[in-house]
Amino acid sequence: MAWGPIWRKCRDWFSAKVKSELGLTTVRDGAANLWATLPGERTDSIVIGSHLDSVPGGGWLDGCLGVLAGLEVLRRAKAQGTPPLTLHLVDWADEEGARFGRSLTGSAASAGALDAHGELAHLTDRAGVKLPDALAENGITLDSMGTARASFDSLAAKAYLELHIEQGPVLMEMKRPVGVVLGTMGVERYQLRFQGQAAHSGAAPIHLRKDAFLAAAEFALACRDISVEYSGKTPKSRVVATCGVVKVEPNFVTAVPGSTEISIDLRALDGKVLKKMLADAKAASKRAAKKHLASVTWSPLLHITPRPFDPTLMTFVAAAVKEVTGTAPELPSGPLHDAAEMAAIVPTAMVFAQSSPGVSHTRIEDTPRPALDKSIRAFLGTVDRTLAHLASSPAKRRARR
Amino acid sequence: MAWGPIWRKCRDWFSAKVKSELGLTTVRDGAANLWATLPGERTDSIVIGSHLDSVPGGGWLDGCLGVLAGLEVLRRAKAQGTPPLTLHLVDWADEEGARFGRSLTGSAASAGALDAHGELAHLTDRAGVKLPDALAENGITLDSMGTARASFDSLAAKAYLELHIEQGPVLMEMKRPVGVVLGTMGVERYQLRFQGQAAHSGAAPIHLRKDAFLAAAEFALACRDISVEYSGKTPKSRVVATCGVVKVEPNFVTAVPGSTEISIDLRALDGKVLKKMLADAKAASKRAAKKHLASVTWSPLLHITPRPFDPTLMTFVAAAVKEVTGTAPELPSGPLHDAAEMAAIVPTAMVFAQSSPGVSHTRIEDTPRPALDKSIRAFLGTVDRTLAHLASSPAKRRARR
Repeated sequence: MAWGPIWRKCRDWFSAKVKSELGLTTVRDGAANLWATLPGERTDSIVIGSHLDSVPGGGWLDGCLGVLAGLEVLRRAKAQGTPPLTLHLVDWADEEGARFGRSLTGSAASAGALDAHGELAHLTDRAGVKLPDALAENGITLDSMGTARASFDSLAAKAYLELHIEQGPVLMEMKRPVGVVLGTMGVERYQLRFQGQAAHSGAAPIHLRKDAFLAAAEFALACRDISVEYSGKTPKSRVVATCGVVKVEPNFVTAVPGSTEISIDLRALDGKVLKKMLADAKAASKRAAKKHLASVTWSPLLHITPRPFDPTLMTFVAAAVKEVTGTAPELPSGPLHDAAEMAAIVPTAMVFAQSSPGVSHTRIEDTPRPALDKSIRAFLGTVDRTLAHLASSPAKRRARR
Repeated sequence: MAWGPIWRKCRDWFSAKVKSELGLTTVRDGAANLWATLPGERTDSIVIGSHLDSVPGGGWLDGCLGVLAGLEVLRRAKAQGTPPLTLHLVDWADEEGARFGRSLTGSAASAGALDAHGELAHLTDRAGVKLPDALAENGITLDSMGTARASFDSLAAKAYLELHIEQGPVLMEMKRPVGVVLGTMGVERYQLRFQGQAAHSGAAPIHLRKDAFLAAAEFALACRDISVEYSGKTPKSRVVATCGVVKVEPNFVTAVPGSTEISIDLRALDGKVLKKMLADAKAASKRAAKKHLASVTWSPLLHITPRPFDPTLMTFVAAAVKEVTGTAPELPSGPLHDAAEMAAIVPTAMVFAQSSPGVSHTRIEDTPRPALDKSIRAFLGTVDRTLAHLASSPAKRRARR
């Protein structure tokens, strides 16, 4: 978990590995992102990244795979001489947000998308430790976080590439070891509160009840229907809707629920589709409330726009995946990744390794050895193609801002 | 709340009232039920009862109304001379079960329906106090509770009568101040566990999910449909189904629920109808589980058979209610009452006073003054008719066992 002693020990191991394998010294930026740089013939660069931090009880590949595959990219490049462009490898700080609830902290800081004082100053962990105090333990301040964007700009990055496990069952169901990621889905996340009237389970006739839980149940099922309605037949056009948090009051066996809180998390790669899903979900919540004589209020939790990846880089991913596995299945990423932050400021692409079982944030998370091997080979092929493409471009071309 | 110092103070007040109004001394039986006895011309008797204990934050009438109306019955009878049969007034101990979870404790003991050692020995309150220790504070033991049935038998009770507030909105909706209670509904109460598979809200496609909460939501809505299907148009044929407890795991905004616990509480006055409702609910749970690729298990919480009241006594209640209010609406009681325990061993009937608002176990519980007045008058009329009926019967008639 980011910011603690085991995380620091893990990063020390990584820095020692970078030293012994590459003879390079890692450098931390103001947001605690940890960088290894292999100078190329030109100073403009490709950034390769992922994260070493995990969640409590998490698996062995979520984040770690991408960082160590990046190490292999640099090791191989160095063995071949000097790469045409500079290669940066980054271990992003606190991708998971497992301790303080804010994910993608380091990559958002580098993308200039983090208001450290506004977003982080008030956060505390379950033990009551304030985020700024946890940062201080790591020699970081809210002010130093504000310098990460300038540090990133100094890299003259022309591309960002990331290998990550899928964390879902899509490639497993398709029986494909490696996939081309189309982008990260947009997210609309809200907390709803259905308000009815608590009553005695024996005394209150059904037709006079204001059962807040039944309203929430209708809403949850309607949201599932909405996700089915807007999903196309291909993984690319898949959308999802999830009610993950449910809390009824008074929560007695003999009480008709007087109020129910329920969360909704809608995701789609197409921003227009996501907007329609949200409108439909709002309408469904009103119908459900009305049917059960309750009222409903919506409170926003999270709004993230879809982040489609760079079309040119995606052709390199597709070619590399096809070369290694014979086919190049495309799929969006439902979970967010540091690549989503990078996509806003630099051409970005991702390679997915199959998850099997297709689960996430559990110790049984895994990828079969042959798929792991193929995903790393496809990632190396992606880097090769990107390097070749950029090497043939004039150095003065600027990264998209 | 039963067994505590405020309850004892309340009962001391009641005993002092019995002493000052009637010149009688209250007596406690082995289950802590508190008795006042007005001897009649015969030793066989009518028992009038309700309870002085309440729930935390409860209202002023739930239980208390019936005990004080009983006091008025005895006061009036004494003022008129010697009643033909003996009149017993009882304040049942721990009707609510608010502290240890076992309701109707005292009346169940008197009815011989309580296995004190088996049911009570292991119970503790929220502070960790064991029920036997709370009993000891009141000079009661699990063994002494076992003597309550013999004490009750010695009363040669021929009828049990109780006045209680409705605790629901039925009479209020009918605009009737007083009602004839047909009996207490049977209860089938279970805890269900839907087991699916937790997954990431972004990574898991809808069609591959095993969403335990959506299965529970389908089940809850199906149970509502079942209650509507089996409910007739009259209050008499009303049945209810309630899902009061809902607990999802892991309960994160980004997690498809892997398991969901949900309670179901089914009630009906007709035992055959209740049985059909339970069978339909079980079938609905299996359909819901199957639809969402989950499994379901049922654990019993409570099984209570319907307790229809005595037809002869009900005619007296109906006549008395009609005399006072012009009409005699009939309704079953969804909530349980001490009368449900009595109905198993002695002819029993109840009078309901309108609740307005039709809520229960809250400080805003109330009955309009005119309805309160009419309900007490109807109860007095019920006792008069019962006394007259029994006085004309031979004393050797035995109570039903």
